[in-house]
Amino acid sequence: MKKHDQDFMKRQNRLTVFEIVKNSRPISRAAIAKQTGMSPTTVSRIVNELIEEGYLFESDQVSEGLGRKSTLLDMVNGSVLSVGVELDVAHMNVGIVDLQGQLVCGSRFDKEPDESAERTIERIGEAIGELVELNRIERSHIVGIGVGLPGIVNNGKGLVVFSVQLGWKNVALADRLKALTGYDVAVDNELKVKALAEHLKGAAIGSTHTALLGFGHGVGSALILEGEIYRGEMNSAGEIGHTTVDPNGMMCECGKTGCLQTYINISSLLSEANRIRPVKTIEELFEARRAGEQWAVQLIERALMYMAITVNNIVCMNNPDSVILSGELIEKFPEVYDEVEKLCNSRFIWEPLRGSFTFHRSGLKEQGVVIGSGLLSQNRFFALA
Amino acid sequence: MKKHDQDFMKRQNRLTVFEIVKNSRPISRAAIAKQTGMSPTTVSRIVNELIEEGYLFESDQVSEGLGRKSTLLDMVNGSVLSVGVELDVAHMNVGIVDLQGQLVCGSRFDKEPDESAERTIERIGEAIGELVELNRIERSHIVGIGVGLPGIVNNGKGLVVFSVQLGWKNVALADRLKALTGYDVAVDNELKVKALAEHLKGAAIGSTHTALLGFGHGVGSALILEGEIYRGEMNSAGEIGHTTVDPNGMMCECGKTGCLQTYINISSLLSEANRIRPVKTIEELFEARRAGEQWAVQLIERALMYMAITVNNIVCMNNPDSVILSGELIEKFPEVYDEVEKLCNSRFIWEPLRGSFTFHRSGLKEQGVVIGSGLLSQNRFFALA
Repeated sequence: MKKHDQDFMKRQNRLTVFEIVKNSRPISRAAIAKQTGMSPTTVSRIVNELIEEGYLFESDQVSEGLGRKSTLLDMVNGSVLSVGVELDVAHMNVGIVDLQGQLVCGSRFDKEPDESAERTIERIGEAIGELVELNRIERSHIVGIGVGLPGIVNNGKGLVVFSVQLGWKNVALADRLKALTGYDVAVDNELKVKALAEHLKGAAIGSTHTALLGFGHGVGSALILEGEIYRGEMNSAGEIGHTTVDPNGMMCECGKTGCLQTYINISSLLSEANRIRPVKTIEELFEARRAGEQWAVQLIERALMYMAITVNNIVCMNNPDSVILSGELIEKFPEVYDEVEKLCNSRFIWEPLRGSFTFHRSGLKEQGVVIGSGLLSQNRFFALA
Repeated sequence: MKKHDQDFMKRQNRLTVFEIVKNSRPISRAAIAKQTGMSPTTVSRIVNELIEEGYLFESDQVSEGLGRKSTLLDMVNGSVLSVGVELDVAHMNVGIVDLQGQLVCGSRFDKEPDESAERTIERIGEAIGELVELNRIERSHIVGIGVGLPGIVNNGKGLVVFSVQLGWKNVALADRLKALTGYDVAVDNELKVKALAEHLKGAAIGSTHTALLGFGHGVGSALILEGEIYRGEMNSAGEIGHTTVDPNGMMCECGKTGCLQTYINISSLLSEANRIRPVKTIEELFEARRAGEQWAVQLIERALMYMAITVNNIVCMNNPDSVILSGELIEKFPEVYDEVEKLCNSRFIWEPLRGSFTFHRSGLKEQGVVIGSGLLSQNRFFALA
């Protein structure tokens, strides 16, 4: 019954009304009531709130057809913008995102060596200020900030519980950034917001069970179920990097042996490569494979096999209709996507589920986290009364 | 937006009203409207339908407190019963389930050797007839039949797509059984209905993210998310038996190598045991382990390790608050549960998620599938207008 408690329904109703106006504008109050099954009183209350707050207005148009004429509601253009932030190991991306999920403007910063969490948060605040000023964004149109980052995030509290990649533990990111900027801040795992963006505006529009996999510096996944991020009990669903794929396998930084990420992620691949000869970058490793160096062929083919196994395991467990492959390894090396898809179809997907889903590349590419973070912030704004 | 379309909301509202009356009876129409946020008109329409259909009645009591007195609604006792059926490799269980999820009466039948699907369905129909007659059940109180079985089920059509255990492929179970009995028939995977039963009436009451694992003749899992069975795109979520745990592992009946079930399920364990000496039953194998025969110790300890790995992998992927271990291996051999829990806590659960969930034995034991199937049928009855 949790889904239908009173608070949840109130928030959901507000978001539903806004979404309907956004997608079917101009539209009458009566039509909204009909589409949602809400009472006319509830619809009127929500609409009046949204008009008062400056997001909707009553247009001159009146509804067509028989019956009483009623004025139609429309959206105030540009009334809603949000800031999306991607926080990664070595850099930050900051962007302004509009209601349609378009990036209005953006900027990118490298992190300083050994930058503290506090300093990083200050720099995000400064970057947002500069972006707003430089692009003459009306401050009052910004409804909030969303931040996506690798690691386990308590999204309710806006707390970064644990991020190996950032070296952060229990950082109250939302509170600190709100104190610096004055805006409400939503924080989430980068793959969750990326998947949300792909579902709303990218490769998986219309999908009801979307799985996004990220293969890069980390290994992770995210599910979007009927339009909503699947979070699990403490927002750490999707941590496939630490599923055990070989109990006799390599030591993982987490203290277990044979975690999936030890076969796939970039630092593991480089550390394995360096058993043979000095290899500084992932590009060098793929170069060695292309040159036919057998050790590099073996190492990368093992990684590709485990990527295909991962797709199978997620498909068996969650039965998605769409699987999006993303992350640095996919985006930098186009052959990786093609080879993983081929391995899946020829060997690794359990036969009864072959053809039960479609493969996709990311539609928003490296913009996914910024756009998704911005959309997350907008969703939260409209859902909170 | 799919979750909030008009049809879905209508069905959900009807079920919600019925659930509230069931759990808070006697209750007024106004209180239902307040608790749900539905309009008084909608509540009245649904309540009137349910009264007309004989499930609710207006009691003599009137609501207390200030304001206008209003009559209170209550349930007609015994007005709703359903039939739950468990269909397994070697036997069938049939039971009558009441609104509280109690088994009113039940019977068990062995299947005949090489019984056809058609014959099995006829025998289910006969068994239901006998059960109803013998226990003087009022036929009009039975709202439908639910059937739980191992395999992939198209739950919308009531079609058994594929069941290795039953040897069935594309069997229109719901249609056939409805033709024989006259009742509406809901069909689903056994672990999904078992998990539903444990969530509603068993070990996981109050849990919002429940994972149930079944270790027995097959290996599978089910998720209950906020009270609803998680199905995925084609109702085959939870098929963990065919996740690959070792690409160099044993040949699975599915044609892949190293599927999880080749390390855990009863027939695989027996087939491995028979490489050493003739072993007919799983009890014999566990006996050999207790007697300290090293090959049996190794074989079972490997299975226990893979069970613990499976718990970790599900926890990493889905982040549940409760994990229920069930199935023949758990229920027949109490040490299995204890050892898997110990292995999980000492070695196999990824450290950040240790303590993020509680372990449970099945609360309904071997009754879970019959009760869950019965409850599934009731849920469907109240959700369909």
